[in-house]
Amino acid sequence: MAVSMETFAQWKNTTLEKLDQSRKGSVDERARHVVCLLNSQERFFTTSSCSGRIVLMDGPPEGGVVQKKDCRWLFISHDPCRSEDLVSALSRSSGEAVLKFEAFVLHVQCHRLEDAQLLHSVAVNSGFRNSGLTVSRSGKIIMAVRSTHGLEVPLSHGGKLLVGAEYVHFLTQKANQKMEENFRRIHRFFQILQAALTAESPDLQRAEDPAVTPGEQENQAAVYRRRRKRQQSQTHAERDEEDSCSLDDCLDLFS
Amino acid sequence: MAVSMETFAQWKNTTLEKLDQSRKGSVDERARHVVCLLNSQERFFTTSSCSGRIVLMDGPPEGGVVQKKDCRWLFISHDPCRSEDLVSALSRSSGEAVLKFEAFVLHVQCHRLEDAQLLHSVAVNSGFRNSGLTVSRSGKIIMAVRSTHGLEVPLSHGGKLLVGAEYVHFLTQKANQKMEENFRRIHRFFQILQAALTAESPDLQRAEDPAVTPGEQENQAAVYRRRRKRQQSQTHAERDEEDSCSLDDCLDLFS
Repeated sequence: MAVSMETFAQWKNTTLEKLDQSRKGSVDERARHVVCLLNSQERFFTTSSCSGRIVLMDGPPEGGVVQKKDCRWLFISHDPCRSEDLVSALSRSSGEAVLKFEAFVLHVQCHRLEDAQLLHSVAVNSGFRNSGLTVSRSGKIIMAVRSTHGLEVPLSHGGKLLVGAEYVHFLTQKANQKMEENFRRIHRFFQILQAALTAESPDLQRAEDPAVTPGEQENQAAVYRRRRKRQQSQTHAERDEEDSCSLDDCLDLFS
Repeated sequence: MAVSMETFAQWKNTTLEKLDQSRKGSVDERARHVVCLLNSQERFFTTSSCSGRIVLMDGPPEGGVVQKKDCRWLFISHDPCRSEDLVSALSRSSGEAVLKFEAFVLHVQCHRLEDAQLLHSVAVNSGFRNSGLTVSRSGKIIMAVRSTHGLEVPLSHGGKLLVGAEYVHFLTQKANQKMEENFRRIHRFFQILQAALTAESPDLQRAEDPAVTPGEQENQAAVYRRRRKRQQSQTHAERDEEDSCSLDDCLDLFS
């Protein structure tokens, strides 16, 4: 079912060339080592990435379908931010401002389904539990790394701020905490991925990361063990809960 | 790579029997027609579902890793709710209360990868853009229907409310709007799924849904056309944006 390695390599070349021609032409600093490690592997290439961000968007007043073009960016940061900057950006709102923390997102095209499965296990075990595969009819297999980790707070209506500066300060702390946890998960993703790849090919040249210990080479088997356990418990637990809903999100809500 | 239909049928029986023995033993009202339609098909069975909910959870004060058992439910509703009820529930917070809107979630085990691909296309085209597949090494293929549609607002700290009742009223309206949009998407999911299944087997007995028009029988081809278009544009667009991030969420933020 997988396409030939030649076809895959052509897709990879085309995609990575396009990246170089793009406006920004670079990958977020915090995700670069992950992107480089994946692109150094014949069987993977990344098609998009964002290391995580705190954004403040201004949308039009309610009613009707909102088009992307109608949204305006008031603030964006890929690092922890200061509440003064958010308060200042909020003062420019003329519609419905919403503060969001969006976690790490990564799309990786994979040669074979097994490659995507490995990556999916790595992602889930690093804390990116909403990760999943897309398989197109033409044979393109994409693994999307996604988190359950978020924050989405409407803050103004018709340009009028609905909360005080103290609350914005509190939200900034929350967003920054989530950003730090997000960085820890990216680091974990890199470590587990590197250990899994090294276990498969012990002669793999290690990419730059200071914190990989020898014990992590045994991580690949552990990745699968934990994954299997999680799948078994999911089927049982989720249905047994009071309202057929998973309570798991609670874990992510406050961390 | 798919398991035999006999093995799949056994898994299905075991899972559906367990459901009947569970504490609640029933599926959320608003998702029932979707769950029934899927379970009526030999190649699918649902392993968990939640039609969408507005929840207020109380977590412990900051610091350390938060365990599920440390979270307390102050309020839960699978329908639009009243702000008075939220304000009243908030008064019982003793830690960090967070208001969340969580959209429709559905996990479906699929016999073959093609079955999961079909379902994935239906989900994405109904607006559930964070949907994705999980493929285990034992051959279990799960399609998870997930939305980008959310709301997550911290509201108290150490039991002390950080916002006014007027803001809680505003948030209730936002959450209720998202709930209504979520219902529209579930309805769309049901319609597109039914049309896709009917196109494959014209003699399929239609499940109860009042709003399916004959034209929707042509939807299956359209599902794939739209999906293909989306995939092509994604690869190009996401990298071209100012910061390698997708702006797509803007669409969902305010709708």
